[in-house]
Parts: sequence; structure tokens; C-alpha cells
Amino acid sequence: MSDPDPVFPIASSPSAVVTPVRWDGAAPVIIDQRALPARLVEWRLASVEAVVDAIASLAVRGAPAIGIAGAYGMVLGLLNAAPGSVAAAHETLDELAGRIGAARPTAVNLTAAVERVRSAGRAVDTAPPDVISVALRTARAIHEEDRAACARIGAAGAELLQGRRRVLTHCHTGRLATGGDGTALGVIYALHAAGRLDEVLVSETRPLLQGARLTAWELGAAGIPYRLIIDAAAGPALASGLVDAVVVGCDRVARNGDTANKIGTYALAILARHHGIPFYVAGPLTSFDSHTATGDEIVIEERSADEMRGFAGGQSAPADAPAWNPAFDVTPAGLVDGFITDVGVIYPPFSEDVVRPGAPEAVRA
Amino acid sequence: MSDPDPVFPIASSPSAVVTPVRWDGAAPVIIDQRALPARLVEWRLASVEAVVDAIASLAVRGAPAIGIAGAYGMVLGLLNAAPGSVAAAHETLDELAGRIGAARPTAVNLTAAVERVRSAGRAVDTAPPDVISVALRTARAIHEEDRAACARIGAAGAELLQGRRRVLTHCHTGRLATGGDGTALGVIYALHAAGRLDEVLVSETRPLLQGARLTAWELGAAGIPYRLIIDAAAGPALASGLVDAVVVGCDRVARNGDTANKIGTYALAILARHHGIPFYVAGPLTSFDSHTATGDEIVIEERSADEMRGFAGGQSAPADAPAWNPAFDVTPAGLVDGFITDVGVIYPPFSEDVVRPGAPEAVRA
Repeated sequence: MSDPDPVFPIASSPSAVVTPVRWDGAAPVIIDQRALPARLVEWRLASVEAVVDAIASLAVRGAPAIGIAGAYGMVLGLLNAAPGSVAAAHETLDELAGRIGAARPTAVNLTAAVERVRSAGRAVDTAPPDVISVALRTARAIHEEDRAACARIGAAGAELLQGRRRVLTHCHTGRLATGGDGTALGVIYALHAAGRLDEVLVSETRPLLQGARLTAWELGAAGIPYRLIIDAAAGPALASGLVDAVVVGCDRVARNGDTANKIGTYALAILARHHGIPFYVAGPLTSFDSHTATGDEIVIEERSADEMRGFAGGQSAPADAPAWNPAFDVTPAGLVDGFITDVGVIYPPFSEDVVRPGAPEAVRA
Repeated sequence: MSDPDPVFPIASSPSAVVTPVRWDGAAPVIIDQRALPARLVEWRLASVEAVVDAIASLAVRGAPAIGIAGAYGMVLGLLNAAPGSVAAAHETLDELAGRIGAARPTAVNLTAAVERVRSAGRAVDTAPPDVISVALRTARAIHEEDRAACARIGAAGAELLQGRRRVLTHCHTGRLATGGDGTALGVIYALHAAGRLDEVLVSETRPLLQGARLTAWELGAAGIPYRLIIDAAAGPALASGLVDAVVVGCDRVARNGDTANKIGTYALAILARHHGIPFYVAGPLTSFDSHTATGDEIVIEERSADEMRGFAGGQSAPADAPAWNPAFDVTPAGLVDGFITDVGVIYPPFSEDVVRPGAPEAVRA
């Protein structure tokens, strides 16, 4: 059904537009995030195998970006299969949804996206080209809706932060992870576009260094002034008056506003409160989980000690060093000064009416 | 006057005693801290060049350990010079003090130690062997005094922490850096020896990872239970009840108790206060600077962005990423619950009577 792995690099210039996934008319093209920040490499994914491999290997990462890649992968699979009947097209959709949806089992956005393309295509019973056409329209809609959600988050955040020109952020929440400008970084892009941003402090975000590897690279590519700090330097940065606001993303927000996000977020919230600096959480409503009452119900994944014993092949600790390595922490709602979402700035408690049901992805590397 | 660089490795077993500098009867032997945590390598320093190189290249590091190595280097230089007269011995002492003292210009302990050996030797006018004998006695006294100071800090801390069995510490303050068990780690060794320690949480201490590379290795070698955490995980560790006390070292303490120490200390102090966990600073009186009234007078060294662009030999950020990389931060006295010293637990303000004069080393890699 698909060719042997025909991906190849097509760009390596930092001036290229930062679009983690795009449809080139016949196939998805992705930025290989594993090669960053050393090199900017794009791959054209000409087979479903290549799409699955790109998602599974974290070449494309970030829950929304994975969903978009999966949706385009569905279209690619249909095109490559060239089904001779509507029934064959529907069968192909079922098969593709199972295969692509399993590339990263915990990514809720991925299964939601491939299911949406599958059911949209299955609703068409005229001719195979119509199925493909609807599948592509659906994939593009998923992409566009995420772009628009990021834009609304950015606009809401830029309005909220008026006059706060120096922003500290954590981890990676930007263009590489989403269909648009991102969540917390979306706010930063919007401030920059409005001429109301002086500098971003980027915490490097141990152990996986998403801030140093991805956020720093992305801000540099966009020409936004930033400085990298070690996570533990947030304290003196806040004390020295280098920061007017802290803005972070979120992996899951409970109904009472308790927020699970990348490890280090909780410390930033305490440090911000200690120094009287506002601390904001940015994310789409899809990250607000109406099934979770408080942060106490959120199970935090503990990851391997290996992540703390070295980096990129180098050894930084004894090879057998035991470690406590939670991937996320929970920030109590009382430390959050506002939630910047695609429906504006909101405050807890969140009713089930305001928050869409569905458990968002808990784990985002 | 001295041989070409004849150092050679003599041990690589983790069961060896952790003594960063020792006198083997004719020359200093050091642990090469650059090889840790991958390998334990000792070098016998048979020439003054080798001593200077070991200090300058950070093979031996930690202000007290550097002072001890320099003192033994003075004795080695005298032995190798084999002076034929008391006048020649005195001249050799002068020359050695200048050469060894310049190996790391900012290390106050180093110049203090070589000056002490020089003036003790110069006070002897009987015969060259007597000069050498007094020099060796003086070097041994410097070593022993530091060991004893560490032991008193450990004893005072173990008494203060009674019942607090889980300790979080930062950076490296242990045997590898001193003539004894160290300062904050000295407290931990004393708790362990008394059977009153359950676990140590060791923050890895970005950017140079002294916690991961040295403290974790040293505690492992001593059989003390520990777990490594990223610096930013201190927040959830304190919130989760994993820590009964935080104990850190100090690079310089002002008269009002403001404390300069490794970057990350200030955040730990705020996090400890937020969670109602006591935060203690451990160090010898020589680190208390009677010439500094408050932390505002302490100039903080900003180091190269290079330290933040890589990790354990790999690239972790864009090669041109700008960074804010202060090496230390200042913790206000009000966040410190007690100072554990070689004269017991003391509290600010510190009078000039209590605090010995002299500016301690401000920079300790």
C-alpha cells in the first residue's frame, strides 16, 4: 500500500518558515524536531509508514502538531491506496485510523484527529475522489482550527499583559508544537507583533531541555529577543526585576484550576507569587478537563533516571545514580493569576458548561 | 628544579577512600575530579609543575582542597630543590609561594595556605631539613584544621537536625572539596554516622552539574541513600513531603546574614519557606565576611553563555543562544533558619568580633 521509506531532507536554512507540519499538495512535510537546534531539516513524508515513524520517533511532537500530522497522514494513505470503490475507501480509512492512531497511544489529539477524518470520509458515499476530498478538507480544518485557537490565545494574552514587556516562559509551547503560534509562546508572538515585548527569559527546562532546544531556537528564528536561563535562575531573575510576567502552558487543568504542566512550573508559580509578579497559564479549552475536580486526581508520570544521568550521549552523573524524575508537577489554582484561553481570559472554578468534556493528553514530551 | 610532568594514575576503584588531596610521604596525591563521575583516578604529583597544573585545570577543586594541595606543593618543591643552605631554602619558599599561589588567582584559601607555609619555613634558621620539616608540619596542620572544622560543622548540624531524617542539598560541599567531610555534606555524613539519616535529595545544579557529577558520586561511594533531582523538582519534592530540611553551603556570608552561594540556592530558600521546611546554611567562619555589611555589596559573577548551550558534551541550545548565567545568587538572611558553623549554630547579625576578618573566595567552580 505504501512505498519504502522515501523521506528526504528538503531544507536546512534557519530562515525557513517554522511550520512543524504542512501539506504540500500531495504529502505532509514536517520539520524534524530531533535535529534541532543544531540543524533545521524538513522531511517530505511520502508513505504512511513514514508518517507513523515520524510521530513515533518524536520527529514531530507537541499534541496539536501530532494530530495535524496524523490527519494529513490519513489523506496520504487514501491517495497512495487509490481505492477503486467507495467501500474500499471506507475500509482504507478504518485501516489507516487504526495504524496512525496507534503511533503514540497516549496522544489524545492524535486519535481525535484521525477519528474525525475517518468519520468525515465515511459519511461520503458518492465516489472515492469525494472521500479523499472530504478527508483533505477535514485535515485542513483541524489544522486551521488549531491555528485560530492559538491566535485567539495570543490576542487574549497580549491584551491581558499590556505594559508587561518582559516575559519569562518555561518548556516549549510554540509553533513547532501546534498548528499556529502556540499557547504561552502564542502570547509572546502576539506581544512581539504588537511592538509590546522587550525580552523573553527562557528557562532551559531540564531534563529534556525543551526550552533550550526548541523555544530558544524558535524565538531566534522569529527574531524575538530572548535570553536563556537555567531553571534555578528564575529566582534571581525575578528578584532582579528582569521579569514583568510569567506565562506557561498547561497539560491539564482541573475544574478548580489546579494545573498540571512540565516539571518546574510549580516552583515558578511560587517564585512569581513571592516577588509579586503575575503568573499566567495559557492553553486551549481542550486542555481543561471537566472530569478532573482538583489536582489531587492528576497522576504524575515518573520517568526514567536515565534522563537525569546524561544528555546527548554525555555522562553527567554516576551511571547507576538513582533519581526522582517526575515529568510534570501540579500548580495549585491559588497561585495562578489567570487562564489565557481560546475563549479569552477565564478564572476558576470552571463549570462543566464552560469546559469541554474529554481528557486531554497528560504526557507531552 | 622539577621533573617533566610525571603524574600517573594509581587507582580507579570506587572503593578507594575519598580524599581529594593526601601526602604519601614524599608527594601529594590527588583525585582527578575532572574524570568523575565516570572514573575514579588518582594522580601522584611529583613536580611543582604538576601541582600548579592540577590546581589550574580544576583536577583538584574546592577552596579548602586547593589550599591543602598548595601547601603540600610547597613541601614538594622544597624537597625537589634540595636546598644546600637555609638562605637557599628561604629563597625557594619565596619562589614557590609566588608560583603556586598564582595557579588560581581568585582562590583566597590557596594564597593563605602557601603564605602560611612560607612564613613558617622562613621563621626557621637552623638547617634546610628543619625548614622542610616545619613546612610539612604546617601543611599537615592546614589539612587537619580543615578536617576538624568540617567535623565541628557536621556535629553542630547533626544536633540541630535531630529528627529531620530527609535532607535536600545543592551543589557540592563534601569530601572532594575539603580536608574533611565538607560543610553541608559534612552535616549529612554526621547524620548518617549517627543513624539519623533516611535519604538525601541531591539537586543536580545546572549549569556545571556539581550535584550530579560530584555529590551523587560521593554519596554513592559512601553508601548513603540518595536520589538525584533536577533543580526545578525541589518544588514538588517539598510539596510531596519528601524533605524535612534543606542544607546548603555558602561562598560568602555578609554581616547581616545575607548569603551568596551557588545559583539556585535562593529559589530553594523561597521554596522551603513556602512549605514551612527549615533552610540552613553550613560553612566555616572563614566564609563569613566581616567586610561585607549586606548582600547588596556582593558582586555576582556572570559566566559565559557557553555553559548553557551544551550539556555533558552535547549541544542543547542554538550555538549563538544568548543567556543570563550568573554563577551565584544571594539569599536574604530572613530566609535562613540558622547558620551551621565550626563554632556551632549561629544567627545574624554577626559582629566583627564573631566573624574573622578577610574576604573569603567569592567564586568556587
